[in-house]
Amino acid sequence: MELENLVRESGEWLRGTGRESDIVISSRVRLARNVASYPFVTRLTPQERNELEKLLREVIDQLPDQLQLTYVDVDQLDELDRQLLVERQLISRELAEAEGPRGVAFEPQEQLSLMILEEDHLRIQVVHSGLELQAAWEQIEQVHRLLEERLTFAFHEQFGYLTACPTNVGTGMRVSVMMHLPALVLTRQMDHLFRSLQKINLAVRGLYGEGSQPVGDFFQISNQVTLGRSEQDLLRQVGDVVPTILEYERKAREYLLKEGYENVLDQVNRAYSILKACRTISSEETLQLLSRVRMGVNMGLIQDVPLEVLNRLIVYTQPAHLQKLHGEQLDSAQRNIHRARYLRQLLSDGEETASE
Amino acid sequence: MELENLVRESGEWLRGTGRESDIVISSRVRLARNVASYPFVTRLTPQERNELEKLLREVIDQLPDQLQLTYVDVDQLDELDRQLLVERQLISRELAEAEGPRGVAFEPQEQLSLMILEEDHLRIQVVHSGLELQAAWEQIEQVHRLLEERLTFAFHEQFGYLTACPTNVGTGMRVSVMMHLPALVLTRQMDHLFRSLQKINLAVRGLYGEGSQPVGDFFQISNQVTLGRSEQDLLRQVGDVVPTILEYERKAREYLLKEGYENVLDQVNRAYSILKACRTISSEETLQLLSRVRMGVNMGLIQDVPLEVLNRLIVYTQPAHLQKLHGEQLDSAQRNIHRARYLRQLLSDGEETASE
Repeated sequence: MELENLVRESGEWLRGTGRESDIVISSRVRLARNVASYPFVTRLTPQERNELEKLLREVIDQLPDQLQLTYVDVDQLDELDRQLLVERQLISRELAEAEGPRGVAFEPQEQLSLMILEEDHLRIQVVHSGLELQAAWEQIEQVHRLLEERLTFAFHEQFGYLTACPTNVGTGMRVSVMMHLPALVLTRQMDHLFRSLQKINLAVRGLYGEGSQPVGDFFQISNQVTLGRSEQDLLRQVGDVVPTILEYERKAREYLLKEGYENVLDQVNRAYSILKACRTISSEETLQLLSRVRMGVNMGLIQDVPLEVLNRLIVYTQPAHLQKLHGEQLDSAQRNIHRARYLRQLLSDGEETASE
Repeated sequence: MELENLVRESGEWLRGTGRESDIVISSRVRLARNVASYPFVTRLTPQERNELEKLLREVIDQLPDQLQLTYVDVDQLDELDRQLLVERQLISRELAEAEGPRGVAFEPQEQLSLMILEEDHLRIQVVHSGLELQAAWEQIEQVHRLLEERLTFAFHEQFGYLTACPTNVGTGMRVSVMMHLPALVLTRQMDHLFRSLQKINLAVRGLYGEGSQPVGDFFQISNQVTLGRSEQDLLRQVGDVVPTILEYERKAREYLLKEGYENVLDQVNRAYSILKACRTISSEETLQLLSRVRMGVNMGLIQDVPLEVLNRLIVYTQPAHLQKLHGEQLDSAQRNIHRARYLRQLLSDGEETASE
């Protein structure tokens, strides 16, 4: 099936291109939409759910060929494939874990994806590597226009687009940037940043969206309020705060190099050497150590690892990717051993610290 | 001064020779003695203390030349030199921190040392590398005989030798073995061993004697009761338990190799690679990691580090040794950086994980 292709590339959000891509991993815009003639997802009868899935799938099929969309019937996937799509950030954990007809359509380059019957009937998402909110917005607006030509979305003159959860009513839009902020973590400035962002109604999450804990110094910053704001307002609200955070992170890195050179080099060297030497390692620890190494590469402390290798490792050391690479299911202990082996393969330069 | 010579060699307790020296680091016997005509140390007037120090120093001077004893006036030493003697285990922390006239005499090979005016007037100590309790006993008995020819020790017909602390009354003897038990720690069997040893009146301490926490899987096992026992009883009491502990540790290592090969290799590889890669490291962490590497070498998991290098590192990464090597005083942060540099020097095989 088409998912096998996914294992060959890293996906858009870790491509490492775009502006400020040393710190801004990716920019994302998503729109929540519901078809006016059907109740919200939780109120659908099984019959209606079937109908609606068919309808939306057909509409997606009719979208221009140049979009090269592939529709995947998530209900037909086994758990490993669903998990793979979650790790790619093509579907949410919610869609993976839901029951009944549901699906996702995405392009080969994985910038655009459309989730069918998640919390809302339709969730349109565009992700661009680096700080590229405007480009992401332009792409999603275009797709949205194409969809609105074919579907009537639930819309209220006063409130705007209607959504299953009241927090999305209005534009139904969430704008987010994923940032890599290891120096702010090391200099203990994240708590302060959290509070400042909360005050201006921005939320901070981990790599894997809602409810996920930040791991490995990766933070997703997004708007919380959508009602009563225009799309451009929301893009500006998130976009305007990014240069400030970038500056904080860059200043913190300068500070670390100047005031704590040995300490930061210590952290980076330890992380890099553990990744090359370990024989068993969890995905969480891997992410934490890769984060340190990524910082080291961006700060010029490590020369011999290309950023693409690190980006690749971030996603390929996740449980489902690892199992796909291996070609069969592995339990947690086996995964930890295979993960360490894969890390040694990609990072070690021939040297071995101990007998094989 | 003579202490400079100490920095060139590792000292007896880390020579790594003697029976079972993969697990038994050293065997030690010490005798507590007091001169009958003087009160115990805490009751001495400054005048008496001066007299007694002079007397004991003279007696030591008169001991046969072949003992090659050097007397060091501990009161005249600066803090760094006192700390150096503590790290060599030639004097106790108590003697280092005491005030007023006091001293220590020791041989070049550091097997025999005599502490003057520690808790008791005289503490005679013999340390042999490996499991060599009987040899240590024979050496200390000989020295004790020589001293008893020249001094009358406080002795009570019923109780035996009298000492400042009632726990030492009787033989005034403490017998101890320092063991390296990483596999028992990793398999969580130490608590059970602690309790079993306590039941038969044996105490378990860390590398640096009374009150020291076990660090780096090094445990000092010694008798607690001395009253009402003969010297041979005490030697047997400690000596008899060692083969059992050795067997436990060896079985635990076999178990680790068989049942948790990847995990134990992981622990060993991580420890070794951190020691080679770090840029700042505390003495405690160093000891913990060296302990893992030492286990790895003894289990055949690491081939390229000689045990002598590890033994040398155990003592030379201690704060005073490090400063002596460097040639000047260093604060804690500087020591951590110099310690990491020294470790890289002795362990790395030319490769560097990051820019210097």
